[in-house]
Amino acid sequence: MKKVGVAILGLGVVGGGTYTILTTHREFYQQTQDLDISVENVLELRRERAVELGIDESKIASNIEEICSNPDVDIVIEVMGGVEPAKTFVLKALGAGKSVVTSNKELFCKYSHELENAAKHNHVGLFYEASCVGGVPVIRSLLDNLQGNEITSLVGIINGTTNYILTKMTNDGVTYAEALKEAQRLGYAEANPTADVDGYDAAYKLSILSSISFHKKIPFSCIHREGITGISPIDIQYGKRLGYVLKLLAIGKNTPKGVEVRVHPAFIRKNHPLASVSDSYNAVYITGDSVGDVMLYGRGAGAEPTGSAIVGDVIYCATHTRYRYSTFENTENAKPSTKFISNFGSVYYIRMNAEDKTGELAKVTAILSKCGISVAQVIQEESDASGNFKAPLVVITHMTREEAVNKAISAINENCDSTVVESVIRVVS
Amino acid sequence: MKKVGVAILGLGVVGGGTYTILTTHREFYQQTQDLDISVENVLELRRERAVELGIDESKIASNIEEICSNPDVDIVIEVMGGVEPAKTFVLKALGAGKSVVTSNKELFCKYSHELENAAKHNHVGLFYEASCVGGVPVIRSLLDNLQGNEITSLVGIINGTTNYILTKMTNDGVTYAEALKEAQRLGYAEANPTADVDGYDAAYKLSILSSISFHKKIPFSCIHREGITGISPIDIQYGKRLGYVLKLLAIGKNTPKGVEVRVHPAFIRKNHPLASVSDSYNAVYITGDSVGDVMLYGRGAGAEPTGSAIVGDVIYCATHTRYRYSTFENTENAKPSTKFISNFGSVYYIRMNAEDKTGELAKVTAILSKCGISVAQVIQEESDASGNFKAPLVVITHMTREEAVNKAISAINENCDSTVVESVIRVVS
Repeated sequence: MKKVGVAILGLGVVGGGTYTILTTHREFYQQTQDLDISVENVLELRRERAVELGIDESKIASNIEEICSNPDVDIVIEVMGGVEPAKTFVLKALGAGKSVVTSNKELFCKYSHELENAAKHNHVGLFYEASCVGGVPVIRSLLDNLQGNEITSLVGIINGTTNYILTKMTNDGVTYAEALKEAQRLGYAEANPTADVDGYDAAYKLSILSSISFHKKIPFSCIHREGITGISPIDIQYGKRLGYVLKLLAIGKNTPKGVEVRVHPAFIRKNHPLASVSDSYNAVYITGDSVGDVMLYGRGAGAEPTGSAIVGDVIYCATHTRYRYSTFENTENAKPSTKFISNFGSVYYIRMNAEDKTGELAKVTAILSKCGISVAQVIQEESDASGNFKAPLVVITHMTREEAVNKAISAINENCDSTVVESVIRVVS
Repeated sequence: MKKVGVAILGLGVVGGGTYTILTTHREFYQQTQDLDISVENVLELRRERAVELGIDESKIASNIEEICSNPDVDIVIEVMGGVEPAKTFVLKALGAGKSVVTSNKELFCKYSHELENAAKHNHVGLFYEASCVGGVPVIRSLLDNLQGNEITSLVGIINGTTNYILTKMTNDGVTYAEALKEAQRLGYAEANPTADVDGYDAAYKLSILSSISFHKKIPFSCIHREGITGISPIDIQYGKRLGYVLKLLAIGKNTPKGVEVRVHPAFIRKNHPLASVSDSYNAVYITGDSVGDVMLYGRGAGAEPTGSAIVGDVIYCATHTRYRYSTFENTENAKPSTKFISNFGSVYYIRMNAEDKTGELAKVTAILSKCGISVAQVIQEESDASGNFKAPLVVITHMTREEAVNKAISAINENCDSTVVESVIRVVS
């Protein structure tokens, strides 16, 4: 039986989950994988956390050098998060001839080129399944199963926090602030929720997933990013009436004209497989030229689902002797030959408050038409009896372009004195 | 760049799709995988089929020996289907030191022990992702991603033909016979549909998937199998009213008390992720002790989706130098230590035709109660005005056991002169 020693850097939620899985399943892996995986070292400043997990004091390393020089450590698991000191530690481990398994999306997104070069140079493995969508087997599927396809598009619900908040707003009709508070109470959102609600987390993951899918580096900086803090329950309700569900989507498209990569709230038809991905569940909907549509669904975060991905990588690393790296030139920035499309096409939902007077709708539709936007659906309602003198006007467009919509909105705000554009949400068909 | 020569045995739907993918993507694989994959030989009795696909006559082999002795062939793709001559050809290829990629579920299900032994003995690879659920990346996910989990259950819609038929019956209210005819017209069902509609195809796949998932051989013969030929549109409609969708499910459970493996029609709650898997789409819903619930969804059949899985295996085979085989003792029969549970627990839907007279419902419920079955829901309707003197009586039970239900049905049929049990369908929660 092959002996495999691992070290865990960081005993936070994911590190603790990984430690627990490895220790409770040790015999199971001996029986089913012919591997004896032992945790030889941990690195954690809070000694009491290590003790709480039942880790022998002798295994708590004082610094990364101690782990790098421990001959019993074959694989270093980095689950600290953030760029530093994680980056320094990972580079040291690779330099010492240890393979690395990481769950660190920000680190891998920003420095995959540097880390992969170091791994290659030292003939060791670098695995990062856990960096994207927790327990959902998406990276391995792209690398080792769908790799015969030209991937034309991927659309994902890849942030659990925002999906929980939007599900809560949809089902209970509460505001963003109320749903966020509940998410924080349940531990689904951080005290400072920016990384999740402003779409950073989803954009890191989209950068990694679209780079692998499209075989070219898609840097974080090239991703159009909008969060969910401005979403109003009114729009979710109108969407429902029109047959749509609101989600924070990460969208990557590879077209002959260029690459589109964007993270933003979007309406999706309620019978689309992604529409029923609720609460903190995640899913990635991948389209390949041969396989057609594939969806991978599961828990995108949490100690055990993310731990499952890490342990999967550890076993993979221990049972595969040849390490593979990105199948494209992994650079810091996109290659100059990569074209990005910012004026992308979409269907749009536009909600306005309009004075309920003759000719107002005609004026608005004339502007849309002048901007080349044709209208697919309209809901115009009477001003309510409560004295609200403005009436909602909701328009769903046919497929149009981002620039045309921006132009139309400016024109409406300038030329229609009694109409205000309240919200614009893209619709994904 | 590594050169990889392949031979394709059989140019049916899947063989043709595989040939087309490999040839149209040759440059793409050179660029993205650093592999030059060429089709060096094909084996197909219908020469005109090979010519129709644009295959050079010089590549059409006369027999398997020619392929086995061709030094340019590294990997043999077997897409003939059926046991013989596929089995003989695969064993010859393995014996000649060629790795084999197969889509043949019946062959792998029945002879995995023999084929894997031959592969191991000859130090070559044997890959079978395409044998189960077409383009859905389920086998690789189980082997190389979720392998850190004890898999406790898998529930799959893994036959496209029956899912198409049941979707048609559900959406259009047509009978089984009408839906089958339409499926045959569209090429979703064979002229002789037995393998699909009687659940053989699903059972082969369940045997393979549950063996991998549970780390022990689960032979086809141990699978409880029922098909969909007896399904009536009435039951689908009652199910709808009760919030259920009818699917042909393949269910595998690994419990401390034993293994449950069964293929049968079942109602599933309409908000379950599997309920929205429609038409010829397939999905597998896997539960692991760490990862929780994961669902993998996509096209389970067809030239290109299955071709995608085959090409994925070819590239995997060419880029991984160490071949792996089943992580359990792969034998012909289940090991004596494997316990199978036939008296499994379930919720049941029971539809009866009952004479609309006082006391009939009381009589039925008394029998159910005597058999230890408690009732969760009842729909009793009046006999219709058209002169139909019997009235439908639908009962949904609480969780009970197979044997209790069989006993209750016999007792109702014996003791209630004016009540006939028309259908019994399991309900999966």
